[in-house]
Amino acid sequence: MNQPDQATILQAAQRIQPHINRTPILTSESLNAMFHTSMYFKCENFQKAGAFKSRGACNAVFSLTETQLQQGVATHSSGNHAQALARAARLRNTKAHIVMPSDSSRVKVEAVRAYGGIITFCVPTLEARESTLLTVIQATGALEIHPYDNLQIIAGQATAALELIEDTPPLHIILAPVGGGGLLSGTALSAHYFSPLTQVWAAEPQQADDAYQSFTQKTFIPSIQPNTMADGLRTSLGIYTFPIILDHVQRILTVSEADIILAMKLIWERMKIIVEPSSAVCLAAIKQHPELFTNKTIGIILSGGNVDLDDLPW
Amino acid sequence: MNQPDQATILQAAQRIQPHINRTPILTSESLNAMFHTSMYFKCENFQKAGAFKSRGACNAVFSLTETQLQQGVATHSSGNHAQALARAARLRNTKAHIVMPSDSSRVKVEAVRAYGGIITFCVPTLEARESTLLTVIQATGALEIHPYDNLQIIAGQATAALELIEDTPPLHIILAPVGGGGLLSGTALSAHYFSPLTQVWAAEPQQADDAYQSFTQKTFIPSIQPNTMADGLRTSLGIYTFPIILDHVQRILTVSEADIILAMKLIWERMKIIVEPSSAVCLAAIKQHPELFTNKTIGIILSGGNVDLDDLPW
Repeated sequence: MNQPDQATILQAAQRIQPHINRTPILTSESLNAMFHTSMYFKCENFQKAGAFKSRGACNAVFSLTETQLQQGVATHSSGNHAQALARAARLRNTKAHIVMPSDSSRVKVEAVRAYGGIITFCVPTLEARESTLLTVIQATGALEIHPYDNLQIIAGQATAALELIEDTPPLHIILAPVGGGGLLSGTALSAHYFSPLTQVWAAEPQQADDAYQSFTQKTFIPSIQPNTMADGLRTSLGIYTFPIILDHVQRILTVSEADIILAMKLIWERMKIIVEPSSAVCLAAIKQHPELFTNKTIGIILSGGNVDLDDLPW
Repeated sequence: MNQPDQATILQAAQRIQPHINRTPILTSESLNAMFHTSMYFKCENFQKAGAFKSRGACNAVFSLTETQLQQGVATHSSGNHAQALARAARLRNTKAHIVMPSDSSRVKVEAVRAYGGIITFCVPTLEARESTLLTVIQATGALEIHPYDNLQIIAGQATAALELIEDTPPLHIILAPVGGGGLLSGTALSAHYFSPLTQVWAAEPQQADDAYQSFTQKTFIPSIQPNTMADGLRTSLGIYTFPIILDHVQRILTVSEADIILAMKLIWERMKIIVEPSSAVCLAAIKQHPELFTNKTIGIILSGGNVDLDDLPW
């Protein structure tokens, strides 16, 4: 199995249900008026540990046996998967070893510690993250839970779009951000299985546009020196996520850093909710390409709300 | 009638229902764990025009006849009542003349303009506000809708606590901020009529503690040179609001500016929602007097979310 099937996603939804929030879906009259759209925001910023990552992490950790969990779990993550995995591991009474890049935001580091995660810092490159993780795994015997390139993670992330589809009128488009592609591939699968007439589009920072390049050229292009404030979207696509995206995503739009800030501020100001820059790329895409969205009913996944309030981008 | 009765509040709820949001009630595991309480936050930051003031303004404006509304309505307000009244007037196709102190926050001024309000600025003292308003009323013939010392305003604000009571388990305490006392007196009446075993406590900035002084000394003390970032809480109690507060409020706690900032940041960080400083005084009171709230079930009214994101207090 290279793609989670319908049953796997439904099973994930059932498995994680006691451990996650069924997050609310918000609308905004003023944003709808501004863009001539009907937007439904799936608020994963209100998810446990502040981001959709709790879905995948819970699904992955709760799929494992006691024996498999005996030496704990391990991962590298810039933040949200780290928190989510630390939380999920604690719920199963096991350890979480987390490799974090040294430029991770303060709040995310503190939150991982608060969930009992054992942190090892490394320089902020993919190579350093992977090699440091390997060392940690060799030293501890922990089981790696990749942040996105893992079928149970993808199935877990798919449950956000599943709930969105269940709780909204028919959607023309679901928009999700793309980094490593865990959320996007899960979203695309849920739309494919549960709302086949809904298109799935992605938004990505121009300054970390490896998914756009890979998607357009139909060949894997890694993320090299991404330079975006959307820290959740700096990673490359994966062996599992990229083919799902090629199969089931219709379009990827890229957005400027200026529009990410503008969209983030609009969401804060008009909707009175806190979302992180990675969550703002979808509205930024609508702002940059309004003609593509006019009179459309759009589901938007707000991926998370873990922001360092002492270091805002405006 | 010097106090809205039960029927008046229920009538207000029915009258404004088409024009306001029934706002959600949020909880936070992490804040509950931090303070050993069970808190239910009534999110008036998600209210139309970003604050509970839409309740009172709609109730007042929709109680008036076409003839009464012919020359429009007028008020002085530092911001949220101004927006709410401008919006309510527009819904009734009449004008709103708004006197605003010159230190009103940028977002609030812009929002009043966006709702079509006609603004006259004045120096930020109560005297200047009142004298400027008088001039405006003489020039236009508009009908004054006082921000809080008006029975229909009080009945409108009371509907927030009414909904809170309807949507939560039995509450030991409802906590509301106090400025002019419109929200607090309405809250106290709703608790009195609809949940008589629930105490109503208020929170107020130490640096604008006229309500605390008035309440303690049982005699009206005006607000003189209040010096708090909670701009909604700088006003004095009113002829209608003060007696209701004396009758039906059990306790007023004052809080420091430092704790207002800390509480505001905690709500932003943990709950991922935007609230203004005036909304944060209730959690600040719990932080300053934790022993009073341990193991209590508490309803907290988050009054609004209109914050200038370019001018945060941290």
